[in-house]
Amino acid sequence: MKKIEHIGIAVKDLEVSNTLFAALLGKPHYKIEEVASENVKTSFFESGPNKIELLQATSSESAIAKFIDKKGEGIHHIAFAVSDIKAEIKRLQNEGFIVLNEVPKKGADNKLVAFLHPKSTNGVLIELCQEID
Amino acid sequence: MKKIEHIGIAVKDLEVSNTLFAALLGKPHYKIEEVASENVKTSFFESGPNKIELLQATSSESAIAKFIDKKGEGIHHIAFAVSDIKAEIKRLQNEGFIVLNEVPKKGADNKLVAFLHPKSTNGVLIELCQEID
Repeated sequence: MKKIEHIGIAVKDLEVSNTLFAALLGKPHYKIEEVASENVKTSFFESGPNKIELLQATSSESAIAKFIDKKGEGIHHIAFAVSDIKAEIKRLQNEGFIVLNEVPKKGADNKLVAFLHPKSTNGVLIELCQEID
Repeated sequence: MKKIEHIGIAVKDLEVSNTLFAALLGKPHYKIEEVASENVKTSFFESGPNKIELLQATSSESAIAKFIDKKGEGIHHIAFAVSDIKAEIKRLQNEGFIVLNEVPKKGADNKLVAFLHPKSTNGVLIELCQEID
């Protein structure tokens, strides 16, 4: 776990939320990216050494749509940068955490990602992410 | 908004969660602090340039107890470091955000803090915090 890479926030309407977070953070998002495999459209804001990722569902099948149906808009996950995601998955499994993706998958922002089940992490959905070379 | 200062996570049992987060982050918490005015006991972990703050209620009157009753354990707030909290409160009010503490109050970790209402911030409880000189 090197550092918090980004905080993911589930939103209903990316355009509305881009305006809101630009006003909050004092600067606009710097990119939009659709991740078709996850049925999400994302936008990214810089926040010092971290990023804020807004996520809008593009299908009712998306995990983000289900999250919003259940809990409403809000913080969805914390992503930690790791240098070796496979080693980190093994380390965390050995510590008793439930890893949802034993084989990392391709996420937004040129990353390999894997999630930990919130029931093993105090209700916090944790993402591990490793930059793809 | 300079950067994310910390992420606050509501937990039921600080001792259990200190062990869990030490395993997750790969290092132990570096301090425990009780904030009697807020009815919470907190612990802090370093995570690169940010901190993780765990919060346990010390009374059923605590906002953390109410949060856990309603939503369960999980991410409670994101705190942003600001250099002039009064100016930032004014700026955000002018942008249409609902500031819950027009007069900043003393929080944990030697900070003046103020919160923004989640209904004005996409369901995210935002804390502004300024280091007290």
